[in-house]
Amino acid sequence: MIFTSDNWAGAHPAIAASLNAHAAAYAPAYGTSELDRKVEATFNETFGRDVAVFFVGTGTAANSLALSSVNRPGGVVFCHHDAHVIADECGAPEFFSQGARLAPVSGTDGKIDPAALEAEIARYPKEFVHAGQPMAITLTQATEAGTVYQPDEIRAISNIAKAHGLPLHMDGARFANALVSLDISPAEMTADLGVDILSFGGTKNGCWCAEALVFLDPEMASQAPFIRKRAAQLFSKSRFIAAQFDAYFENDLWLDIARHANRMAARLQDGLLASQNARLAWKCDANEIFPIISQTKAASLRNEGAMFYDWNPPRPHGNLVAEDEGMFRLVTSFATTEADVDRFIEVLG
Amino acid sequence: MIFTSDNWAGAHPAIAASLNAHAAAYAPAYGTSELDRKVEATFNETFGRDVAVFFVGTGTAANSLALSSVNRPGGVVFCHHDAHVIADECGAPEFFSQGARLAPVSGTDGKIDPAALEAEIARYPKEFVHAGQPMAITLTQATEAGTVYQPDEIRAISNIAKAHGLPLHMDGARFANALVSLDISPAEMTADLGVDILSFGGTKNGCWCAEALVFLDPEMASQAPFIRKRAAQLFSKSRFIAAQFDAYFENDLWLDIARHANRMAARLQDGLLASQNARLAWKCDANEIFPIISQTKAASLRNEGAMFYDWNPPRPHGNLVAEDEGMFRLVTSFATTEADVDRFIEVLG
Amino acid sequence: MIFTSDNWAGAHPAIAASLNAHAAAYAPAYGTSELDRKVEATFNETFGRDVAVFFVGTGTAANSLALSSVNRPGGVVFCHHDAHVIADECGAPEFFSQGARLAPVSGTDGKIDPAALEAEIARYPKEFVHAGQPMAITLTQATEAGTVYQPDEIRAISNIAKAHGLPLHMDGARFANALVSLDISPAEMTADLGVDILSFGGTKNGCWCAEALVFLDPEMASQAPFIRKRAAQLFSKSRFIAAQFDAYFENDLWLDIARHANRMAARLQDGLLASQNARLAWKCDANEIFPIISQTKAASLRNEGAMFYDWNPPRPHGNLVAEDEGMFRLVTSFATTEADVDRFIEVLG
Amino acid sequence: MIFTSDNWAGAHPAIAASLNAHAAAYAPAYGTSELDRKVEATFNETFGRDVAVFFVGTGTAANSLALSSVNRPGGVVFCHHDAHVIADECGAPEFFSQGARLAPVSGTDGKIDPAALEAEIARYPKEFVHAGQPMAITLTQATEAGTVYQPDEIRAISNIAKAHGLPLHMDGARFANALVSLDISPAEMTADLGVDILSFGGTKNGCWCAEALVFLDPEMASQAPFIRKRAAQLFSKSRFIAAQFDAYFENDLWLDIARHANRMAARLQDGLLASQNARLAWKCDANEIFPIISQTKAASLRNEGAMFYDWNPPRPHGNLVAEDEGMFRLVTSFATTEADVDRFIEVLG
Repeated sequence: MIFTSDNWAGAHPAIAASLNAHAAAYAPAYGTSELDRKVEATFNETFGRDVAVFFVGTGTAANSLALSSVNRPGGVVFCHHDAHVIADECGAPEFFSQGARLAPVSGTDGKIDPAALEAEIARYPKEFVHAGQPMAITLTQATEAGTVYQPDEIRAISNIAKAHGLPLHMDGARFANALVSLDISPAEMTADLGVDILSFGGTKNGCWCAEALVFLDPEMASQAPFIRKRAAQLFSKSRFIAAQFDAYFENDLWLDIARHANRMAARLQDGLLASQNARLAWKCDANEIFPIISQTKAASLRNEGAMFYDWNPPRPHGNLVAEDEGMFRLVTSFATTEADVDRFIEVLG
Repeated sequence: MIFTSDNWAGAHPAIAASLNAHAAAYAPAYGTSELDRKVEATFNETFGRDVAVFFVGTGTAANSLALSSVNRPGGVVFCHHDAHVIADECGAPEFFSQGARLAPVSGTDGKIDPAALEAEIARYPKEFVHAGQPMAITLTQATEAGTVYQPDEIRAISNIAKAHGLPLHMDGARFANALVSLDISPAEMTADLGVDILSFGGTKNGCWCAEALVFLDPEMASQAPFIRKRAAQLFSKSRFIAAQFDAYFENDLWLDIARHANRMAARLQDGLLASQNARLAWKCDANEIFPIISQTKAASLRNEGAMFYDWNPPRPHGNLVAEDEGMFRLVTSFATTEADVDRFIEVLG
Repeated sequence: MIFTSDNWAGAHPAIAASLNAHAAAYAPAYGTSELDRKVEATFNETFGRDVAVFFVGTGTAANSLALSSVNRPGGVVFCHHDAHVIADECGAPEFFSQGARLAPVSGTDGKIDPAALEAEIARYPKEFVHAGQPMAITLTQATEAGTVYQPDEIRAISNIAKAHGLPLHMDGARFANALVSLDISPAEMTADLGVDILSFGGTKNGCWCAEALVFLDPEMASQAPFIRKRAAQLFSKSRFIAAQFDAYFENDLWLDIARHANRMAARLQDGLLASQNARLAWKCDANEIFPIISQTKAASLRNEGAMFYDWNPPRPHGNLVAEDEGMFRLVTSFATTEADVDRFIEVLG
Repeated sequence: MIFTSDNWAGAHPAIAASLNAHAAAYAPAYGTSELDRKVEATFNETFGRDVAVFFVGTGTAANSLALSSVNRPGGVVFCHHDAHVIADECGAPEFFSQGARLAPVSGTDGKIDPAALEAEIARYPKEFVHAGQPMAITLTQATEAGTVYQPDEIRAISNIAKAHGLPLHMDGARFANALVSLDISPAEMTADLGVDILSFGGTKNGCWCAEALVFLDPEMASQAPFIRKRAAQLFSKSRFIAAQFDAYFENDLWLDIARHANRMAARLQDGLLASQNARLAWKCDANEIFPIISQTKAASLRNEGAMFYDWNPPRPHGNLVAEDEGMFRLVTSFATTEADVDRFIEVLG
């Protein structure tokens, strides 16, 4: 009953096998191998257009380099106040972008509220050097609240971005989970909606270390090779990231994994909703679910072997949580089993 | 006959197997798993003292974070003029250390000349703010010339470092190759000689992606956890780096791999020295060898399937190379076979 | 009737005269002249202890270098949400400190609320690398709301700083105005209350360009000479900043100027309070005052030659301002006359 | 007999008077006053075209921001090995440009040698990410050796810049001295020869603090307002820099000052050449002169009140200097008198 995080799971067997299969061979280094090329072509097919792809080692790297690649002096990046970039990356985006600022924007369900976004952008009037200048908008799909932006919600953000001449970045650490939740294509969730740059995450969805920085508009990538190398993110044996992605995309494994994880989360949600002993902070669209449970119950669950995190949100979520309760986070992955879920619900009662 | 680089080789079977063996299990993320702990303990044993170890993804990351961790404003890092940090890292050390400067120091055989080092340091008089201030010395072991610093040569550099109050960093991308060449212990090649911080490389010696930033004096590591995370080098599934190192150290596999690679290089050297058609730029101590061959011969070798790089050094190496000749680099690894070597020598004639 | 800003005023005649008086002489450059030394000694006397003083050209420089001098990777600086460092410096503090973050803290009257500060610091648990780490607290004295922290209010912030091992910085762009408002000594407003580093502003109080970075504890200044030079803030003819400060301190001119400006603001406040046509957003303690006036009245005042800024605060100040009203800022300086003030009140009616 | 540096001189009387004359008036802050506008127009006239001008406080700031404004990741700036940017700015250019590297290029007489420049650029092959990428060329006019680039020498550098798509920056800390030496117009020394960005220095030529960052092509300046503000170089009372420049340009005062300084240097040179007791390291074209004198003579001169610096060059200047000799630097300025010069020569004998 491990629901701590999808990065506590290991590597999916098919991905582990692919790593293993490529272990023996020689191959050109630094992203120049045939396998690198093949996987880059797969990205093109996956997104239905020529994209510029750069493999990196961590999601923080993908996000930070995405934002660095559209850097402006005195730049301000608008994100949801619970976004990973602002809450969980130790200032990496600010560091890589030479001190750009992350401006938190409010919004329910982990999603940027368009009106709040407009209000925040308005604090940086054009050519008013004292305040700095808007530089990018970033949204997280699926969100940190386990919800998923609907296409028209992304479009609303994207329209604001375009109106202000701002690039739109998507943090897709859980891209696959969102995608299968919406049941649309990668292009329909990104380029078609005005997303310019994507952090495409594989690690949380069954890889051990496979993240990609994807420029939907390759012209924005002109400096990216240098930005990546200077950031110490160009792996000499890059083909091992490629090898993971190779298995990841084969026969839509990535979508299958995400569907499984989402299904396990939905099963958890069903159980939680049916229980008298829990309620939900937000409706679950993907593979994260945030129950509010009494501290006593939570202790019982942990006594029975359930593992999950307290979710002490950086910002108070109103009066959702009573004094003797806690908010917790449950995350599912390729490795979550129905038995895990059912046992959890059973202990919860 | 692939002699391009040790990072063209894949992963050693035992290391690939270890990765595979750990694929299935759940484990705490971000470097907190039991396997991470176990491997950290192995580092302590390996170095015969408590060290502070931080796994990172690339050698450039290890070097850059090592230097960042001893950062000073207006800081100057002294390195050999052919060092990887100055020649091959796209300015990453300067970037991560907020604009510190790499000052090239001359020296034969890829080694920093102590007198030249003193002269270079003297250009930065104490408290003369215009010039900046010395911040660190970094040496590469084995060197970029395929040579290995003798202990007393390291001691000579280290004495200068201590005299000027400068930390001494060792870029050990090929640490194992140097170690078995000298046939001394890790401590005898580092801490005992005054090395403070080490980039401990596994990737070139049979891992697919395993580098460690090692503080021989753990007190220097107080900020390193934040420096690593901010640099996007804290891997969520960090235990997969640990898994590689676990196999790497088991039964001294790492030393066996290095001994094999060095032996193959020595065999190449024997052949090259015996041939009328080549001479050597530098004597080979480790697993890199730099023959000077006629362009015609080089073309023949390549026609027969030999792969190796032209070595157009960033700085002219005097009149070593005649007009119709080239300097080339041959690198051996765990994957190099005697057959490869013998065939190369045979074609060379 | 110019009430736009105290930096619209020129240079006080005595300060202009001092600049002029030192124009002819030769003097050693880069802060090494006798005059530099003399003024540094005056700072020691002024603060009743040995301080480390560094002249810089702008308040933004003083603030940014103060924070850079206590830099930590992934560092977070806590400030009031309307503080100059976060609202008006184009990201300079973040830029100079390699991407440190400014975390806005709420509080009425432009002052950091201690409870809110504690809550914000609590978001960065010790050694939790994902969030980053606290690095400093900065408060503005006088505040951006024209108020002045009472000594016990500073003490409350300082106690929190000490409890968390954080240096405390004071942005004293209007230091003199606060000082005469409290009628205490410089030491009583800083070192005695636990302030570690001070941005000591002269420009807004009658200099043309004279700011000083003051370390109340000189041991914290060990890297400051390099930090300043690297920041392009070491002036070759530094003695001209010294010349301004020389006149500034002579016969307590700086306090006289500040008293005059505060008196003019108090006179404005009296008139505003007596008027039916205005009310105040905050009580004025120093030389800034924020009346809420109908837009019609504001237009009339401007028609009559009054100059002042709309104050569209970056954050909404509740329901202070009705729809047909505006909040405005009036600032007084050495150059403000009673006639200016009285005429303004007369037109206001 | 003060020949230490042109920044030991104070402010020219006309410039001091202008500062004084503008002290009393109110004026809009942050570079928006009428005087700022007037001086910007003067720059346009001076360069015979629309230029984008940004006042800053130090030459280091002008240089650093010029290079930052053409920043590239992994960027390399080519400069003469004795250039101020590499030898005397404490790493400021590297700091402001996020770790760009300064690559020293050799050349006699303080001038970049075109062939050496080409060779240095060739070390950074296009799209070879490991090495980094060329980003700019910067030359110093007048040079640090007291010489002046002839127009065709600038053209030679500029042709290389254009061929490689690199912007060309000129460090004009002693722009006026070079200009009157060549007796051409500002445009003929810059834009007409392909210079893109200029650090236009006033401080060494009679101002107390007046430097301008000049974009000959204003389109390159789009980010400069934010770059300057973020660098803490936007002065609130900017018009006082403008006031200095206003007097500086009036009736060609700047050229008169420079002609005087150059004339004094020429007079020194005549005396030095006529003496048996000195010889010159380089021919003097502007206002710096580098005699080689016996240490005994140097001591005598200092005993008689002459002040000047030892010139221990960062790089050995061959065997120019015998063991009992020293190389010294003499600098003249608006404040240098014929009597100073004649007395120096008299003591020299």
